[in-house]
Amino acid sequence: TKSEMKQGFGSSGAVVVATLGALNEFFQTGINKEKIYNLGCKTIWEVQGYGSGIDIAAATYGGIVKFLKGEIPEKVEFKDFPIVVGNTGFKAKSKPIIESVQVFEKKYPEVFESIYDNIGQLTKRALQAFKENDLETLGELMNINHGFLYALGVSSEILEKLVFASRKAGALGAKLSGAGIGDNMIALASPGSEKKIAEAIREAGGEPTVARIDEGLKIEEVK
Amino acid sequence: TKSEMKQGFGSSGAVVVATLGALNEFFQTGINKEKIYNLGCKTIWEVQGYGSGIDIAAATYGGIVKFLKGEIPEKVEFKDFPIVVGNTGFKAKSKPIIESVQVFEKKYPEVFESIYDNIGQLTKRALQAFKENDLETLGELMNINHGFLYALGVSSEILEKLVFASRKAGALGAKLSGAGIGDNMIALASPGSEKKIAEAIREAGGEPTVARIDEGLKIEEVK
Repeated sequence: TKSEMKQGFGSSGAVVVATLGALNEFFQTGINKEKIYNLGCKTIWEVQGYGSGIDIAAATYGGIVKFLKGEIPEKVEFKDFPIVVGNTGFKAKSKPIIESVQVFEKKYPEVFESIYDNIGQLTKRALQAFKENDLETLGELMNINHGFLYALGVSSEILEKLVFASRKAGALGAKLSGAGIGDNMIALASPGSEKKIAEAIREAGGEPTVARIDEGLKIEEVK
Repeated sequence: TKSEMKQGFGSSGAVVVATLGALNEFFQTGINKEKIYNLGCKTIWEVQGYGSGIDIAAATYGGIVKFLKGEIPEKVEFKDFPIVVGNTGFKAKSKPIIESVQVFEKKYPEVFESIYDNIGQLTKRALQAFKENDLETLGELMNINHGFLYALGVSSEILEKLVFASRKAGALGAKLSGAGIGDNMIALASPGSEKKIAEAIREAGGEPTVARIDEGLKIEEVK
């Protein structure tokens, strides 16, 4: 897995997995993806001290991954679809964001628990939409999900600019990605609208990248 | 009640209540506020064909009103606090917005029911915050509430601009008001920050009004 993003889109997870994959190849240890995933999680927990491991799962398995903390990630079948990533240009530090959410969570436990429940329900529904290749529903779920993340307090002015610019340019859905506040948002493009969305993101002050869902860890060449 | 807003902040409700109040005074019918509230609701239902009646309640009773559809509105005790209203300049029609929410509600009934539940919980908590004059909590509740409204699909680019501009300028909380998409947002000002918030709203493209919570229907002069 290569990462050309300079900031905040699971790049540290990607680097960890790529390094583990390269070492695995070099030493011919022959460990499988599940083991690489576990080692990757161990690495980020030791270095960062936190993290769900979802970045490691995405980088290891690629594609669309069903991720539940404490369970082995599962690959989800899907048809190829275009996404546009919009970088806010603002590097948000995950740790203080997570901590500020935790402060609110302590003060409003029922509300926050309900938001987490809802996000879980939306995700289940999204799995179904992936299976049915129902991009319209997927986009709606992304928009609703973004609203819940907003309620948690992790959206920002620049994220909203990029999210609304994408929607106006024809995105079926748009949401922040990761811990929020800065870093990236992603938009689900309706067929053929990638370029228009990318331009809209750039005009709104973001750095767009038209992307496709790729496979995970792979060895491209060994000399 | 006077309304200097030219659009979308319960002005039609205010006009209805003011007219009923004037007629009541003129004909010396001596009906009380509860009766005026009921007549006001009847009027908007006949003219608009919809409406919760909350605008009528606010215009009749003034101050802070606890409003539950089908129940007589209750006045809530509070200490005076400053709010800044930001007009988006965009007149949103309530009916199509409500209808588009209903379409989503049909498709995602559990999620939308949960959002309504949460909004109800936040409102109960807000009543307590009013009693305790806990403006900080009130602001947080406004922000969370706005997130839920966003999840319903009724925020917009311009509303987000004004909401984030207000927060950055020192508002304790900010949220859309009414049906959303356009019309107005309101910001709860921290003491002394009204002017700064008003300026920020203007810079962000909105029309600010620094306001205070006033009493409801009153007869100012009879000649």
